[in-house]
Amino acid sequence: MKNVLLASTSTLYGGQYLGYLQNEARNLFNNIKEILFIPYARPSGISCEAYTFKVQSFFNMLDIRVNGLERFDDPLNALQNAEAVFTGGGNTFLLVKKLYEYNLMSTLKSKIENGMPYLGASAGTNIAGINMKTTNDMPIVYPPSFDCMGIVPFNINPHYLDPDPRLQHNGETRETRIKEFLTQNDIPVIGLREGSWLRLLHGSIKLEGYHSCRVFEKQSEPYELEPGLLPFI
Amino acid sequence: MKNVLLASTSTLYGGQYLGYLQNEARNLFNNIKEILFIPYARPSGISCEAYTFKVQSFFNMLDIRVNGLERFDDPLNALQNAEAVFTGGGNTFLLVKKLYEYNLMSTLKSKIENGMPYLGASAGTNIAGINMKTTNDMPIVYPPSFDCMGIVPFNINPHYLDPDPRLQHNGETRETRIKEFLTQNDIPVIGLREGSWLRLLHGSIKLEGYHSCRVFEKQSEPYELEPGLLPFI
Repeated sequence: MKNVLLASTSTLYGGQYLGYLQNEARNLFNNIKEILFIPYARPSGISCEAYTFKVQSFFNMLDIRVNGLERFDDPLNALQNAEAVFTGGGNTFLLVKKLYEYNLMSTLKSKIENGMPYLGASAGTNIAGINMKTTNDMPIVYPPSFDCMGIVPFNINPHYLDPDPRLQHNGETRETRIKEFLTQNDIPVIGLREGSWLRLLHGSIKLEGYHSCRVFEKQSEPYELEPGLLPFI
Repeated sequence: MKNVLLASTSTLYGGQYLGYLQNEARNLFNNIKEILFIPYARPSGISCEAYTFKVQSFFNMLDIRVNGLERFDDPLNALQNAEAVFTGGGNTFLLVKKLYEYNLMSTLKSKIENGMPYLGASAGTNIAGINMKTTNDMPIVYPPSFDCMGIVPFNINPHYLDPDPRLQHNGETRETRIKEFLTQNDIPVIGLREGSWLRLLHGSIKLEGYHSCRVFEKQSEPYELEPGLLPFI
């Protein structure tokens, strides 16, 4: 049974890093003494070491030790031995490229499917989808594939943003981008707003947190789902 | 000598499609009776046919015939015979994938280097850079490479947007994204604001239009350049 929490964002406006998820993380990592942290997405280009340090500061409050994957000569072996994993946000292209480079994607998937607790935020949430084709990130590196773990039977768009009618800008809205995705792919997309997360437990998928989510499917109009059980298995 | 216009956007807020570029397009396509249009970026997923129709409506005002590339069984042959080319905006991943699929990227590059007039808007501007790794678009398809034409010796970020301090959202700013790019690549990036364009003529590159541009380079702070000749050749 999967035991997974996929958050839209690590940080809410004005809040502390992972602060709003403190109780959730405590439940997810109940009885876990040490988690493996995957730092490769490197938000704003910070080093893996600095990123791990930041994550450790949060998990100190939960009495959980954080081991950054950058500390291991053999990342695959470290992953194979992990009790629990957290993948932080940043650039999804960079994250996915590194996961393939070190041959970690399929092992992470099978450990999660076998019940290892997993926390993802932003890019770490993207990789739980079928592929990374609905990321918001800039393609700063070329990964060998866009395919991801498929821990959920859809794609996720983290940091989902509603169109802003005040904006005098010709860039595409998020909704337009996801509709473009659906002209090329037949995969549902969950637009997950900041402050919302998905919780996989007891064989079901629940939307939790402060907002409804927006669901996009090929050949139908987008619609909202309120927090609670999602009709996807 | 290259004869190229690279626009940040096709459309200004409240304006008509390509309206603000009417005089510029007239100069660029002086004495041209027919242009080849590359519609593959398909903004909002519209069909290539509908996109060509829209572009024709604009070029009617200049008495120029528009031939959409979707009308040809042999796109490479059509490109080889083109007098002038316009590549419209939309999704850069889709555009680049199709250009490689039909083997058009290198032929387009060499025709432009040999003086064929070229107009690019948004995604059509991105492909004139060294690679597409500074596009804002969603990776809805997987192109065989991110490499582009290198018509200019840098990358371009079209629709460049300054950070908005009012925004209560944790998604990355454009500046943060480009800085992430520079941790992985040593290629200058020109942030081109809507209403600005680059003009390649007489062997030089000029910034024209309504705004300064923002220049990002590895290991230095971003800076502004005013309209006029750019210090890149």
